[in-house]
Amino acid sequence: MFDINKFCIIGGDKRQIYLGNSMIKDGKNVTFCCFDKCLEPVDDYSRLETAVSKSDCVILPVPLSRDGKNLFTPLGSRVIALDQDFCDIIGDKTIFTSNSRLLLSTGNYEKERVYDYLDREELAVLNAVPTAEGAVEIAMRNYKKTINASNCLVTGYGRIGKVLSKMLAALGANVTVSARKLNDLTWIRLNGYNPIHTEEISPGSCFDLIFNTVPSMIFDENTLRKTSQNTLLIDLASAPGGVDAEAAERLGIKVISALSLPGKVAPETAGEIIKNTVYNIIKEESP
Amino acid sequence: MFDINKFCIIGGDKRQIYLGNSMIKDGKNVTFCCFDKCLEPVDDYSRLETAVSKSDCVILPVPLSRDGKNLFTPLGSRVIALDQDFCDIIGDKTIFTSNSRLLLSTGNYEKERVYDYLDREELAVLNAVPTAEGAVEIAMRNYKKTINASNCLVTGYGRIGKVLSKMLAALGANVTVSARKLNDLTWIRLNGYNPIHTEEISPGSCFDLIFNTVPSMIFDENTLRKTSQNTLLIDLASAPGGVDAEAAERLGIKVISALSLPGKVAPETAGEIIKNTVYNIIKEESP
Amino acid sequence: MFDINKFCIIGGDKRQIYLGNSMIKDGKNVTFCCFDKCLEPVDDYSRLETAVSKSDCVILPVPLSRDGKNLFTPLGSRVIALDQDFCDIIGDKTIFTSNSRLLLSTGNYEKERVYDYLDREELAVLNAVPTAEGAVEIAMRNYKKTINASNCLVTGYGRIGKVLSKMLAALGANVTVSARKLNDLTWIRLNGYNPIHTEEISPGSCFDLIFNTVPSMIFDENTLRKTSQNTLLIDLASAPGGVDAEAAERLGIKVISALSLPGKVAPETAGEIIKNTVYNIIKEESP
Amino acid sequence: MFDINKFCIIGGDKRQIYLGNSMIKDGKNVTFCCFDKCLEPVDDYSRLETAVSKSDCVILPVPLSRDGKNLFTPLGSRVIALDQDFCDIIGDKTIFTSNSRLLLSTGNYEKERVYDYLDREELAVLNAVPTAEGAVEIAMRNYKKTINASNCLVTGYGRIGKVLSKMLAALGANVTVSARKLNDLTWIRLNGYNPIHTEEISPGSCFDLIFNTVPSMIFDENTLRKTSQNTLLIDLASAPGGVDAEAAERLGIKVISALSLPGKVAPETAGEIIKNTVYNIIKEESP
Repeated sequence: MFDINKFCIIGGDKRQIYLGNSMIKDGKNVTFCCFDKCLEPVDDYSRLETAVSKSDCVILPVPLSRDGKNLFTPLGSRVIALDQDFCDIIGDKTIFTSNSRLLLSTGNYEKERVYDYLDREELAVLNAVPTAEGAVEIAMRNYKKTINASNCLVTGYGRIGKVLSKMLAALGANVTVSARKLNDLTWIRLNGYNPIHTEEISPGSCFDLIFNTVPSMIFDENTLRKTSQNTLLIDLASAPGGVDAEAAERLGIKVISALSLPGKVAPETAGEIIKNTVYNIIKEESP
Repeated sequence: MFDINKFCIIGGDKRQIYLGNSMIKDGKNVTFCCFDKCLEPVDDYSRLETAVSKSDCVILPVPLSRDGKNLFTPLGSRVIALDQDFCDIIGDKTIFTSNSRLLLSTGNYEKERVYDYLDREELAVLNAVPTAEGAVEIAMRNYKKTINASNCLVTGYGRIGKVLSKMLAALGANVTVSARKLNDLTWIRLNGYNPIHTEEISPGSCFDLIFNTVPSMIFDENTLRKTSQNTLLIDLASAPGGVDAEAAERLGIKVISALSLPGKVAPETAGEIIKNTVYNIIKEESP
Repeated sequence: MFDINKFCIIGGDKRQIYLGNSMIKDGKNVTFCCFDKCLEPVDDYSRLETAVSKSDCVILPVPLSRDGKNLFTPLGSRVIALDQDFCDIIGDKTIFTSNSRLLLSTGNYEKERVYDYLDREELAVLNAVPTAEGAVEIAMRNYKKTINASNCLVTGYGRIGKVLSKMLAALGANVTVSARKLNDLTWIRLNGYNPIHTEEISPGSCFDLIFNTVPSMIFDENTLRKTSQNTLLIDLASAPGGVDAEAAERLGIKVISALSLPGKVAPETAGEIIKNTVYNIIKEESP
Repeated sequence: MFDINKFCIIGGDKRQIYLGNSMIKDGKNVTFCCFDKCLEPVDDYSRLETAVSKSDCVILPVPLSRDGKNLFTPLGSRVIALDQDFCDIIGDKTIFTSNSRLLLSTGNYEKERVYDYLDREELAVLNAVPTAEGAVEIAMRNYKKTINASNCLVTGYGRIGKVLSKMLAALGANVTVSARKLNDLTWIRLNGYNPIHTEEISPGSCFDLIFNTVPSMIFDENTLRKTSQNTLLIDLASAPGGVDAEAAERLGIKVISALSLPGKVAPETAGEIIKNTVYNIIKEESP
């Protein structure tokens, strides 16, 4: 696959533009489609067809679609349906996409030509950094004291939990991390944080800042009842999140739901992470 | 001096309210004056006199005054002139103030009763933390990539330089610190940063983020000419700062001037820092 | 299983004594067997039988045996064969042992009563700390410069690799870590070390200190040929290790083989790690 | 002074040899005198005179003398008295020495030609690193548990205190640092250690490891009485140190006196530190 040099980037937000520009700096040939609000004057279907036909591959955005029907094109003025027509245009190219399951269901794509970059472990690892920085930024903006000397709880010791707890501790916070597995709890302690079992979070939690990274309802009404009203809860877990927002409001606990942080807080880094992941796929698939 | 227990806080912004509330939690008796916009219904001169007369001491705000004539009372609706009348009211109390030089010039105060908490070394050290966190927050909000893996320059290795460079490195930035003294440069290297002599900053500076902590014109037109347009310059030095703002604008270099960060980004912490400093003074002056 | 309170510790080195003493501090009832060189005056078979019969469980040492035939009893003067006779004495008790496979092959033990504490993940994680500290101590003692500012290579990013690279970086070393998986290489970079693919170690390696944690022949003659004579190689991988010792000697490269570090450098910590692991097993097996 | 290129190194231990060899690598011309035990076959007075006469400068060892009378020449077989005869040989050269006060008292040297490199702040700062590493190595070797999770006390927050407490914390110790000045105590807390006033050290000190860096009798009989027998005390303060060794022995507290660590634990680094300091002096004195 190492003869892939011409990329056609169709749709997406700013990070796709950074992705493309960074590829151009690497000497790649890049065409942007569906960015007429900020990049090109005209942008019609015929142009899309031409652009795709001249490329070795196509890069679709993240998310692939907001509504499950049309491509996510916030910076383009035309609606592109995810249907067989679209498949007819891009189907014989190598395709890098997020949510390949959805894409494959919208046309008779050849499965072997479709690569899901969002599924890749290294992208998830790398995205943990802008996500954690975004969480820290949100905390700094909304908390009236310094992160330094604050009592922080990070729920979950997965990728985001690992990066975030390290950052918070480095800033001088007193960091507690919750997990379920003995193994994770052991690493949490070794790395200098206070370990706490997920099931023991509730009673008497006196944390200034809670960062939830676990996508399951940890902060239900019951747990929230035991949470101080002075606590700021930042929910980083993908929808539906891990906090009962309604109960929180009722109880007067401030909750900030923070999703898709990489694209928001560091679009250029987010673009480069996608680029490197695409490059890795190409390298691995090359003979 | 250890019989000081009744504090009268006159003027200032939110951090003075946090200061007072924190003292109340410690069991002190605190009266607020000139906070009628957010705290009390009435606030007239007679009330001020009464409040002061019932207190052991008076705490004046930071800054003491914005215009050099009147007390800084952004949360109060009345203007309080810094004059002999004011001195007649508070002059026979122990006074904790910022800018004691200005205060002493506005009435016949007894010098021995006036303590300048802003002059205290430990307050300056402690304020370095919210200042550095504020600088990091500004950088996160305005930079399109992550702090992690960015190239940062911190000018000056004083209190803020020390705390800020540690934070940036902890977040994964590649940190360069400039200083003039061989000694500082040695510590900079020992602490894991790239040392650079202040005079060698200019040529070929390829930094993503520059944090200036030195209150002298380091970034004059000449130096700015050699600075990349992609650099974000955050000026933390007290007025007039260390950046030729006009030249920067002409050259298309983005400069953010960030002053009084502690009170802005972490008013509660800022209030507690003042509190602890006042306590320290009281403790030291007690027999 | 929570009614286990009487422990009989049979054989082993100093760390078993620390293990027992630490249990005694916790209020447990502990009997030591086969430690007559340093603990008890008499130590015969009848005593062993009595001791076991009065206990709820038996703790066997690590290693279980040096020669595969007799129990490891360096601090006892009698030889205890691992045979059916021994099984007859301890077989109806709960048994905590290292190398359960060997033990089970020496008598008709009931498998469900035999727990292998050395097999437990949390023990392996916790042992990474004394192992890494031991490696640092060896490096400090044998290297003529400081760890600070040295160029270190850690091969492998498993438990020991993770803990060791963190320690070295914290001491100010310039740390490179090798791994094979893209995922590990990504984490290595995120954590601030230089990532290098295992297969690219050889050419031009200019490291002051190399710590091998991978139990496969990475440093064969071919790789060693490309290694500087000034490099100090510390092999932490379990036997047969990852270094061709003969070739290294021929090429004048100093190699230090460091095995079983926890028991050597921090026997008290090693004993406590075993204790906590035994406690964890008891807790998990309790209804 | 920038025309200094020929160095004559007279006396000293291994670190002076590393110093010289490192200079040779830099392209300097270096002659060694008084190292006949490990370097040259012959080494008489006439040779010394010739060597000096051919050099631009002379580098004397650290310490300059053990007995106050003769040069410190542990690797040379001849005794070189520090007297007017010696001054006649080296007096008209630029001289880099430790303990310039002693040297100047032994002959009619020209004060302006004599530079004391041991007096230089940057050497003292840089030496803090090998000193701290040496202290950590000693602790590792003599303590039966890991530094990780141990309770450490570092007395004094000067150069060594700063570097050592950072290292210990990085290794996972729980670090307390004592100081007298409020300012130092503030920095200690900011940097994440437990601050304790020097005068409050004594009561109930339950530290596993104590590192004394203060050259005054902090650990007198009175304080030692309150110290646990399980504590290991490492005295890094220059003679007479800060521990009443006799009382400690009587009370059964283990004390290790560790002096001149840089030359012992990292002679090569120690040599390079002297080299860089000499270079700095030359640079500063050059027009």
